[in-house]
Amino acid sequence: MRLVIVGGVAAGTKAASRARRLDQRAEITVYQDEPEPSISECGLPYLLSGVVERRDELVARTPEKFAEKGIDVRVRHRVEKVDPEGKKLCVRDLESGEVFEDAYDRLVVATGARAVLPPIPGADLDGLFVLRFLTDADQVRGYTKERSPKRAVVVGGGYIGLEVAENLCRLGMEVSLIEAEDRVALAYGSEVAGRVENRLEDNGVNVHTGAEVEEFVGAGHVESVRFGGREIGADLVVLGVGVRPSVELAKEAGAEIGETGAIRVDRHMKTNLPDVWAAGDCVETVNLVSEKPVWVPLGDTANQMGRVAGTNAVTGEDTLEFPGLLGTGIFKVFDLGVGKTGLSEREAEDAGFETVSAAIETSDRASYYPGAQKVFIKLISDGSSGRLIGAESAGSGADKLTDICATAIWGKLAYPDLVNLDLAYAPPFGPALSPVIQAATVLSGEFERTRRGIRASE
Amino acid sequence: MRLVIVGGVAAGTKAASRARRLDQRAEITVYQDEPEPSISECGLPYLLSGVVERRDELVARTPEKFAEKGIDVRVRHRVEKVDPEGKKLCVRDLESGEVFEDAYDRLVVATGARAVLPPIPGADLDGLFVLRFLTDADQVRGYTKERSPKRAVVVGGGYIGLEVAENLCRLGMEVSLIEAEDRVALAYGSEVAGRVENRLEDNGVNVHTGAEVEEFVGAGHVESVRFGGREIGADLVVLGVGVRPSVELAKEAGAEIGETGAIRVDRHMKTNLPDVWAAGDCVETVNLVSEKPVWVPLGDTANQMGRVAGTNAVTGEDTLEFPGLLGTGIFKVFDLGVGKTGLSEREAEDAGFETVSAAIETSDRASYYPGAQKVFIKLISDGSSGRLIGAESAGSGADKLTDICATAIWGKLAYPDLVNLDLAYAPPFGPALSPVIQAATVLSGEFERTRRGIRASE
Repeated sequence: MRLVIVGGVAAGTKAASRARRLDQRAEITVYQDEPEPSISECGLPYLLSGVVERRDELVARTPEKFAEKGIDVRVRHRVEKVDPEGKKLCVRDLESGEVFEDAYDRLVVATGARAVLPPIPGADLDGLFVLRFLTDADQVRGYTKERSPKRAVVVGGGYIGLEVAENLCRLGMEVSLIEAEDRVALAYGSEVAGRVENRLEDNGVNVHTGAEVEEFVGAGHVESVRFGGREIGADLVVLGVGVRPSVELAKEAGAEIGETGAIRVDRHMKTNLPDVWAAGDCVETVNLVSEKPVWVPLGDTANQMGRVAGTNAVTGEDTLEFPGLLGTGIFKVFDLGVGKTGLSEREAEDAGFETVSAAIETSDRASYYPGAQKVFIKLISDGSSGRLIGAESAGSGADKLTDICATAIWGKLAYPDLVNLDLAYAPPFGPALSPVIQAATVLSGEFERTRRGIRASE
Repeated sequence: MRLVIVGGVAAGTKAASRARRLDQRAEITVYQDEPEPSISECGLPYLLSGVVERRDELVARTPEKFAEKGIDVRVRHRVEKVDPEGKKLCVRDLESGEVFEDAYDRLVVATGARAVLPPIPGADLDGLFVLRFLTDADQVRGYTKERSPKRAVVVGGGYIGLEVAENLCRLGMEVSLIEAEDRVALAYGSEVAGRVENRLEDNGVNVHTGAEVEEFVGAGHVESVRFGGREIGADLVVLGVGVRPSVELAKEAGAEIGETGAIRVDRHMKTNLPDVWAAGDCVETVNLVSEKPVWVPLGDTANQMGRVAGTNAVTGEDTLEFPGLLGTGIFKVFDLGVGKTGLSEREAEDAGFETVSAAIETSDRASYYPGAQKVFIKLISDGSSGRLIGAESAGSGADKLTDICATAIWGKLAYPDLVNLDLAYAPPFGPALSPVIQAATVLSGEFERTRRGIRASE
């Protein structure tokens, strides 16, 4: 049985490894455009600043390592066409330019996503970069080394933009961040977004929100950026304005594309094409809270999907399921951790929920224990059932609180569960009642007030 | 309506505060033996070493602060008798010796627990202490200041013993820890216990397991400890051999005592006596996994129970429920965090489960991200349903992993849920797949091997 996998980052390599583990005899080939497989793309911002020192640290496994396991990884090879009737592929060797045909019994499409380039005048100037692949990071690092840019502009206040802004600051650049919407970290409520903006400014980043970039100005290489009637000098620009699923190959082969623009798959990661599965940043899945199709390109999810796709492809059966996700995410900006799971209030209202929310700021550990720091948490619940449907946190331990809430949402817990939840307490690790429990208690008060009219004096 | 609360530590003060919040007019009195209310008992080990600098940091609220909220807290007052028919109390003022009568409409018993003194010859020598109340810590500190002990012996390898051992080390003492059982941290499996013992020894603590103390030797004050045929010098001994619920008052009044020796209450924290609730370290509850009665004296649980008892007592209705707990706990020994939730393998087998377990040691964050450290996690599942019924963790982020697992157990999640769980990933916060997900994947492999015979090469 010949299994071919198109794409060799998170989902593709996970599918390959999983398939090999379950079937020692299958022939497994991975085709990958980029020069390395198995790249930890989430680490790229940290490579710019040297927080991650060596680029090879971001290559989890080389083709040689895969070969030892009997997985044939062909880098710099692009699959240009899939013929699902004949189960054939057209592959271009990007080094030699040669095109050849290959065949498969089963196919996993893991073509990932790519950065969006905005249609802004001057976007083709030197000194403008995106940060999606390791080769992008190489280019930024090369340019930085060669030209020692002093002033950097980051366009886009999402995860990537925020992480890049921090890491360019670490290099000593003067950094400005421009976001078209009225706040950064749009997936979050305004309480968290405000904290993020403050932390950026505290660390010297100039934050410009509600400001659309009009033009990148320069002769050959970028010299300034014009936005909202202003113009600021820029020796380096990093664009973090979004990514888009790479679906062209699958679409041309007849794969169904979902309403999010990514490949539609079932719970077994199967496409509508016979013996073709898909996984990772090129597919859409379902948000388990809103029950709506979503496209969420993240490395951990890609890994989980890859495991399911690889298993089902190699067994040829519906062995495993990927039920969907919650929209959990986290990022760090300077020393502020910011996490989220489920729906924000805005997303919940868009999904038809009437929400009841509670937000608190409290201590991350017993207030008398040295090093106690503040953490913000907001719980969003469904007003009719009391079920937790979203949570946001910023500050020390935001990762822990986000994961507790993600697990609670997965388990369909409601506020009375959260109030009594048996979490781990000792003074070095948290306050006597976890911030999740404290916030749930406030939430409980909101429900009491609304429903039973008990007067509370909080 | 007059609400009287017997006991003013975690459960008692929480019940009082909650009652006041819900009812501005109720008369609320708290009687408390010890000289201060609202003590953070979990912080006591850290007060010994000065990690917590001032004793008043451990007094969350003074009687004066309670008075501002209209809660009358009488410290150094012991309730000696309850007459549930006449709804009367007999109270002794421990300062003046005076005894007086009081009356209640509703009563909350929160008499807590006290340290067990082992029946060992010499246990009455000077220089031997327990560590339960703030006054115990005062005594240890006084003795330490006066006599500058060089050699300390800690008896008992549970939470308190381990935390005390660490904190006496911080004072520069040579510390020996003696545990009668064959390992420390008995509530955990041997993998965790071994890690704890190694961490103690790495930090200079002499660990003696399987060694019963035979005698404390000394003239007036302790000079040595004899155990297992050996004798070691000791200028200071701290006994951490356990605690026992303080139930005498309730028992004499006719309250039903459960099989654990603690007061039996229903889900609304009601005793069998009319208008008498009980909460905190003096009551038993149910382990939600084993469904058996358990007695777990912990500050966070006492808080949660106090909230329920205070609410139901002040409303006079079954307003809130405390459904039970999972047995979640955590402690720190030097720089090792150790947490647990649900049942250990041994506890699970005692409860009649056939278990399937998986244990891994992995990185607490992306391996390329600076500062990555090791963490151990073990998942214990019910072999027939695949449900998670226990977890143990030791190392960096053990608190986070324990809380994720506690929430998962509460939500009755099984290994296929855990494998796909949507947890928060970014390189500074974790590996691409959380240690929980990694361990669940190994667990999944165990089930595959057992049930479906898929050959896995892990």
